[in-house]
Parts: sequence; C-alpha cells; structure tokens
Amino acid sequence: MAEQEVELKRGLRDVYFESTESSLVIGSVGRLIYRGYDIHDLAERATFEEVAHLLLEKHLPTQAELDAFSASLRQCREIPPEVTEIIERIKDGHPMDVLRTAVSALAAFEPGVDDVSHEGTLRKGIKITAQTPTIVAAHHRIRSGKPPVPPDPSLPHAANFLAMLFGERPDDETARLIDKDLIVHLDHGANASSFAARVTASTLADVHGAVVTGLSTLKGPLHGGAAEGVMKMALEIGEVENVEAYLAAKRERRERIMGFGHAVYRAEDPRARHLREGSRRLAEKMGDPKWFQILSEVEKRMQPYAERGICVNVDFWAGSVYYLLGVPEDLFIPIFAVARVPGYVAQILEQQDKNMLIRPQMRYDGPMDAEFVPIAERG
Amino acid sequence: MAEQEVELKRGLRDVYFESTESSLVIGSVGRLIYRGYDIHDLAERATFEEVAHLLLEKHLPTQAELDAFSASLRQCREIPPEVTEIIERIKDGHPMDVLRTAVSALAAFEPGVDDVSHEGTLRKGIKITAQTPTIVAAHHRIRSGKPPVPPDPSLPHAANFLAMLFGERPDDETARLIDKDLIVHLDHGANASSFAARVTASTLADVHGAVVTGLSTLKGPLHGGAAEGVMKMALEIGEVENVEAYLAAKRERRERIMGFGHAVYRAEDPRARHLREGSRRLAEKMGDPKWFQILSEVEKRMQPYAERGICVNVDFWAGSVYYLLGVPEDLFIPIFAVARVPGYVAQILEQQDKNMLIRPQMRYDGPMDAEFVPIAERG
Repeated sequence: MAEQEVELKRGLRDVYFESTESSLVIGSVGRLIYRGYDIHDLAERATFEEVAHLLLEKHLPTQAELDAFSASLRQCREIPPEVTEIIERIKDGHPMDVLRTAVSALAAFEPGVDDVSHEGTLRKGIKITAQTPTIVAAHHRIRSGKPPVPPDPSLPHAANFLAMLFGERPDDETARLIDKDLIVHLDHGANASSFAARVTASTLADVHGAVVTGLSTLKGPLHGGAAEGVMKMALEIGEVENVEAYLAAKRERRERIMGFGHAVYRAEDPRARHLREGSRRLAEKMGDPKWFQILSEVEKRMQPYAERGICVNVDFWAGSVYYLLGVPEDLFIPIFAVARVPGYVAQILEQQDKNMLIRPQMRYDGPMDAEFVPIAERG
Repeated sequence: MAEQEVELKRGLRDVYFESTESSLVIGSVGRLIYRGYDIHDLAERATFEEVAHLLLEKHLPTQAELDAFSASLRQCREIPPEVTEIIERIKDGHPMDVLRTAVSALAAFEPGVDDVSHEGTLRKGIKITAQTPTIVAAHHRIRSGKPPVPPDPSLPHAANFLAMLFGERPDDETARLIDKDLIVHLDHGANASSFAARVTASTLADVHGAVVTGLSTLKGPLHGGAAEGVMKMALEIGEVENVEAYLAAKRERRERIMGFGHAVYRAEDPRARHLREGSRRLAEKMGDPKWFQILSEVEKRMQPYAERGICVNVDFWAGSVYYLLGVPEDLFIPIFAVARVPGYVAQILEQQDKNMLIRPQMRYDGPMDAEFVPIAERG
C-alpha cells in the first residue's frame, strides 16, 4: 500500500474537536470568558470559590449555595495519612512529580473511584480540588524538614493554601492576590492539559486518572513552565538601568523574552493586569520595589512589539508575585495546578456528559511488506 | 458574538494529526504492521525483546544487538525500595491505579528526569519498560499477603514477569504464550492512550509523565477494559449447550457480545489468532477444555456477523488465556500495560523528534456577555 493521501493537521491546529460551554479565549482581542462572564469582572468582584462554583455548577452561586459549596471544599481538604507517607518517600522529586503521584494515590482511598456518573465525578472532583493545595503545601513543608500544617477550616481556599505553605496566616491583601491568581488560571479553553484530560476521560476512565493526565501534561515547559523564566530574567537584569542593554542583547541573539507572546493571544493576555497591580503593591510592601520597576521597564520597552501581537502574558506578572511571596521557583507550576484542577474537572464533566471516544488517526509513512529475516541471518 | 461557524470533528474521527513510522492498523482487511513487518511474522517468529527493539530502535536486532538490549532491560528491572513501600500503602487500590502511581513515583528517583532528548527518553523509556512488570507483580504479591519475588536476571521479559507474579518459573510453552501476547499488544496506531501520551509529550513533559498519561487513559473501559468481560460471559454461559440460548437472549435484548467488534477492525482482529491456539492448548493442559469449547462455540455462532464487520477481537482469546493461567480479572489491563508501555515510549520518541504542541480548538456554545451581579443581589 502506498502512503495514504490524507491531509495532516499537525498539532491539531485549528481543528475543533468538541463544543464547550465552559470557557472561551478570544485571542485576537485578548478576552477570556468563563460561562459568559468576563474574566475582569470575575477577578475583581468574585472569589475563587464563587468562580469554581460557576465552572463546576454552571452558575454563580447565591450566598446559600456558596456557603454549601465552600463547606464541601473545606470538609475535603485532609489527605489520608498514607498519602502523606507517600509524599515523604518521594520528597526529593520535582513538586509536579510529587503532586501527580499523590493525586494518583488518592484514587486508592476513594470509594466509588470508578464511578463516572456526573454526580460521582463532581463529588470526587470537588474533593481533588480541595486536596490539591494540601498536597502541594505538605510536600513543600516535608522537603523543608518541617511538619505539614493541617488545613484550617476557618480559612477560604487561597488563604488556607498560603497558611499551609508558609505556616502562618496570610494578611488579607496577600490572600486576595492569590485568590485572584487562582481565578484567572482556572480554565482556558482547549489548553493542552485540559485536552489531554478529556482524552483520558473519553475512554470512561475516572476523574482521578483524567486529572493525573492533566497534571502530567501541565508540567511540560511549553505549557505550565513559563513563569519560572520571568523572575530568572529579572534577576539576570539586576538593575532598572540594565533593561535596555539586556533587551538589545536578546534581540541581537534573536532570543525570546520570557513572559511575552502566547499561543493564542495576539493582544494583551487579559489575565496579566490583575497580577500587575498586585505585584506593584507587594513589591512596595516588601520594601523591594526594584523587581517591579525592572519588569515595568521591560514591559514598557517591549511596547513596540505589541503591535505585532507579542504582548505581555500572565506568567510575566505571576512569576514576580510568587517570587516576592517567597515561593520557590519549582512551586510555580504546582500553584498553576492548584488553580487549574477544578478547570480540568469542569471539562471532564462536559466530556463525560456527551462523550465520544477521542481517537484521531496518524498517517503511516513507514515501510510496508518488510520481509522477516530470522535473527541468525540478520547482518 | 454569535456561535462561531466551524466544523466540529467530534472525537477527532478521521482527523490525521501526525505521521508515524511505528505501526499501522489496516482495519478493512485486518492487518497490523510494526515498522513494515506483519504482526503474524513477529508473533510467530520473534520474541518480545526483538519486537520491542524493533519499535524503539527502528530495526530488528542482530544477535549482538539483542543481547545488549535484553541486558539493558534485565539490569533495570528493580524498583527502589521506596516505591515498594508506596505500593504497600495503596495495596487495596485497583491495580491500574497502583501501577499509575508507582510509575509516577519512579520519576522522583530518576536522575535526569526532565531530559527530553532522544537518548534520555530512550534510556528512561527502556527502564520504565523493564520496571512495569516488577510493579504489577509486586503489587499482586503484596495484596495477596506474600512478599514480592525479585526479578530473575536469567529469565527473559515475559518469563520473568510470570515468575514474579506466581512465584515460580513458568514452563516454556506458557512463557512463550505470554511473550506472544505482549508482542501483539505492543503498539496499535493512534489508540487513545498512545495519543494521550503524545499530547503530554508535546508540551515537552518528560517520558515518565507521558507514560503516566498513557496508563491513566488505558484504564478506561472503552479502551483497555474488554478482556475482563469475555471470561465473565463464558462463566455465565457455563456449558457448551447453553451458548445458542445465551446468544439468542443477548440478541433479543440487543446487547453486545463481549470480545466482538472493534473501533477500527472490520475484519478479524489479526492479533486474535495468536492467542486462540494458545488458549486451546492451555485449556487442554489444565484439564479444563470446557472454556475453550464454549468460546469456540460462541465464535462459530457469531460467524454470520463477521460479514457485517463484527468479528472476534484480541480480547476474546486474551481473556481466556489469562483466566486459565489463574490471573485475576483486575490484572488483565495491567498485563495490557506491560505490553503497551514500550509502545508508548516509541510514540513519545516520535512525537519529541519532530515535536509540535498538540492543541486543538473547541467551539464555544456557552452564553456571552453575562452581566455580573454581586452575590448579595443574586436570586
């Protein structure tokens, strides 16, 4: 058989594999919408719990609904002691490898783990959402030689995460900043990790497996890994007056500037602005305004490229926020994961509710009709 | 903005996302080809190690190459004691959840875990291939209250797996039957789990993460889960003379017959015949020929449906082979995984070698321009 004559859609660029009601990215104008609501409204006027409810339950909650949803999250934050012991045994691994392993292990303690009904997936998905920050924080404490901090049921999601991570309650402004950070990272159309999670879910594999797939995929440097590079760049620049020379040298070597450009956005990433102001205030509060000034200068001098669609992206400001809070670089992707897990769950639910196995084709370009030669006669 | 007018390719049916030189499934005539070689030649005339070499190194090995490849597999079979301890802590989980967790945990002990070079991925992929049977067998021993059996470096891949699983060296015929079973399950075009592993790899995530994605996806009942159902059916039928009535009742209720039909094959699944004869001989050897007779009768009476493309598939005979060997049903998919992991690695290598991020689109059918109402005013 000769090579089949088929059209290759490499990377599935511009192929629509499904419809969604969860989120919409309009790259041309830099808009992000969750179930009809503009990300700017949600980031500035709602909490993480409200927005997670919006994605998972398909509407913004009333106060009574929010109270019930928040309570269900708070009740599920604990992880089994065996999973803490598992984290101890792999504590020197990359935090994303540890998170992936621990979420995978949670499946062994989940009654009805194979239940792929809407209700079952939603219940388990809310639980994984609640447990993910506990895992990330417990691992960081354990590898730092400190005991894990138990979840505090009096705190909302973001504040509790920070409290478990650093061992002290965050001030309100910091908690709100991370709350916003989680909101803007919750969902993002057919991003690679949510898509991969859908492929897993499409075989009727359960939500634990599908989330594990999402986490495996998020770790990739082409997906979750850009925030780390921004602060490396700021540290390399060192002083505001070095920005111009640094960018010129980068241009000379035709190298990419970290935190600019996006696979989808041709205008400013709508998520960036919500972290920009937080980064400024955090830098001032910490008495360390230099990094904000360096990054602002980079952003300003990159303005001419904005017309060509190379605009600042969310990682640009997220990286500096995390850095200023004292979060180690290898936790930047796990924080992204804390935000994105409920987004995976929302998409897994959509996939299951009108499921069709996702199984594309590949064109075979290899040899045909090779003659088998026994090993003794191979030369 | 109104609903975008785009063509939906649900399930990515008939969309070609990439080219491959690894394997080709020709569903219309029931052919399966690995790098040009017909599966019938490979199953009958080569060993698992030769065929794994073919897929990973792109050619059938000479004796010297095979010796080196086999040695590298044998050297890597051990798993770190911490991973055994992890298995102990989740021993009551589904074997696929345990396997997924343990492979994920291996990443924490892998120097160069993030290396996505061809050489790095190949080296680590061979190691995961060697460790997968050790994990499956160790878990089964531990949950049965028995100590894990250490790998035996004097045995080939399939025989060692059986020895670790059952605690005694298999006879040559049984070892060869499982060797064949692993060969025919090694690769299969753009199947859902290999595709999902490619999506993960396309973000430049590492091979441990991509294999974990494959395992998460293989667990789904629409993908890896059909072999279990065949023996359940045989046990339900109970006696050869019940076959006709059983099938008639199934037809009456318009229910599917397990082990028949395939998403791709419209002719006999070319993998089935290699396990059919093994099933017959095994049943005779065990003095338990009834199950083979029942399944043969089912196959015979299903002949009229073959013209409509509903033919016997590989699970039909694989299920009976596993059952006769005394393998518990929940290990059927893990055995599939033992075979398929090197297939994942071959496809992950292909994806990395000419990588393009796999990121399709979704059509947004949700609401637009929803007005944000503060929580106190929601009714």
